[in-house]
Amino acid sequence: MSTDNIRIVLVNTSHPGNIGGVARAMKNMGLNRLYLVAPRDYPHEQAEWRAVSAKDILDTAIVVPTVEDAITDCQFVVGTSARERRIPWPLLDARQCAERMAVASSQEQVAVLFGREDRGLTNDELRVCNLHLNIPTSGAYSSLNLAMAVQIVAYELYMVMSSPIVSTNEVEQWDSPFASQGSMEHFYQHLEETLIDVEFLDPTAPRQLMARLRRLYSRVRLDDMELNILRGMLTETQKWVKRASKEP
Amino acid sequence: MSTDNIRIVLVNTSHPGNIGGVARAMKNMGLNRLYLVAPRDYPHEQAEWRAVSAKDILDTAIVVPTVEDAITDCQFVVGTSARERRIPWPLLDARQCAERMAVASSQEQVAVLFGREDRGLTNDELRVCNLHLNIPTSGAYSSLNLAMAVQIVAYELYMVMSSPIVSTNEVEQWDSPFASQGSMEHFYQHLEETLIDVEFLDPTAPRQLMARLRRLYSRVRLDDMELNILRGMLTETQKWVKRASKEP
Repeated sequence: MSTDNIRIVLVNTSHPGNIGGVARAMKNMGLNRLYLVAPRDYPHEQAEWRAVSAKDILDTAIVVPTVEDAITDCQFVVGTSARERRIPWPLLDARQCAERMAVASSQEQVAVLFGREDRGLTNDELRVCNLHLNIPTSGAYSSLNLAMAVQIVAYELYMVMSSPIVSTNEVEQWDSPFASQGSMEHFYQHLEETLIDVEFLDPTAPRQLMARLRRLYSRVRLDDMELNILRGMLTETQKWVKRASKEP
Repeated sequence: MSTDNIRIVLVNTSHPGNIGGVARAMKNMGLNRLYLVAPRDYPHEQAEWRAVSAKDILDTAIVVPTVEDAITDCQFVVGTSARERRIPWPLLDARQCAERMAVASSQEQVAVLFGREDRGLTNDELRVCNLHLNIPTSGAYSSLNLAMAVQIVAYELYMVMSSPIVSTNEVEQWDSPFASQGSMEHFYQHLEETLIDVEFLDPTAPRQLMARLRRLYSRVRLDDMELNILRGMLTETQKWVKRASKEP
């Protein structure tokens, strides 16, 4: 898998702001090769403004007159398609398609074609593609902004490309070790003792009180510092009960 | 799973164009509830222009002065976070988080908070969240455009919502409804008050005590019965402090 072998191809884009938005979306997701097929209005300050820190993507973008020029050296070409077409074509959603592209990119040049803002790719352009990609959308409003469509495809590519390594590890991220089972038992004893002291828990009719508190704190997995805070609170509370009880 | 129970909350958005982009991204993915916390420049023609056919989302958007006003009736609050924080928090990526939100939305009010374009959510805003959401991005340029971030989260929600497989439901299994954000705030106030009463918390040198306790209890998601138990303990403790203090 190599992002250097994947290019984003924008066909006849009308709004230069969208080109800038695409550049930023690409760089956010680790893509860097942008082809512009006969853009209507480019270069343009709107593109620069929307690209923010992805100006390097614009600087290295390749402007070509036809789709053919953009994909002639590619082995695997994907066309994004919103609508149902008259001629059925192999169609995958963005997630499935990202997997296919990631695999292909290890040895092949891969292109993803995005069409015009108002009417997408033509049937002729879709016919040169190996595969069609559809981004699932709500029936109430299915027309995605161009840069948004690129963002989703680039995001799905990034998720595939980065997946085997990441996996969030709750324990490694934490700043304090989690409490041991032994410390938790001491805490529960201390808690029960204190609840009896403040007369919130009646030992002759305990109901489900401790069971509920155990469920609460085992669900959260206390870390050592939190356990110390809670035990400190209990100790202070017990002092006040003693002080109040000492008086005649 | 119900999209009607999921709201997108934009905090202090600077550029009205982004608000329009968010509205379109939401409608494309079947979401319809937008809250705007103190937007800098809204309503604005740029918002309308970028929303295109999602003007209805803007028309029904609710503008409020504070984050609290936007989430007080919510049981499950997610904050989007790009950076590493000093105090780690339960953190999931957009995909994992979408699953959790979809499940919660069947019975609960769910909010997803998106921060300012330049610096995201504040630490105080992140502390009211049950969970933090991170969108994986390339290290070369990790700052996503606001509307793009909403697009990815909304897309992941749509992917979960439209997938036929429904996972086991944490919420349905539970025996007591989860506490609302408003009740949690009352609990934190009561807790802080009691800690000062028992002289465990010095209001002139509070250190990170309340921050750590907030993290603990927002992590666990208290149900209503647990909240009642904890508040009962605090009330009893305060009585003992009063009793001890009354004596000469």
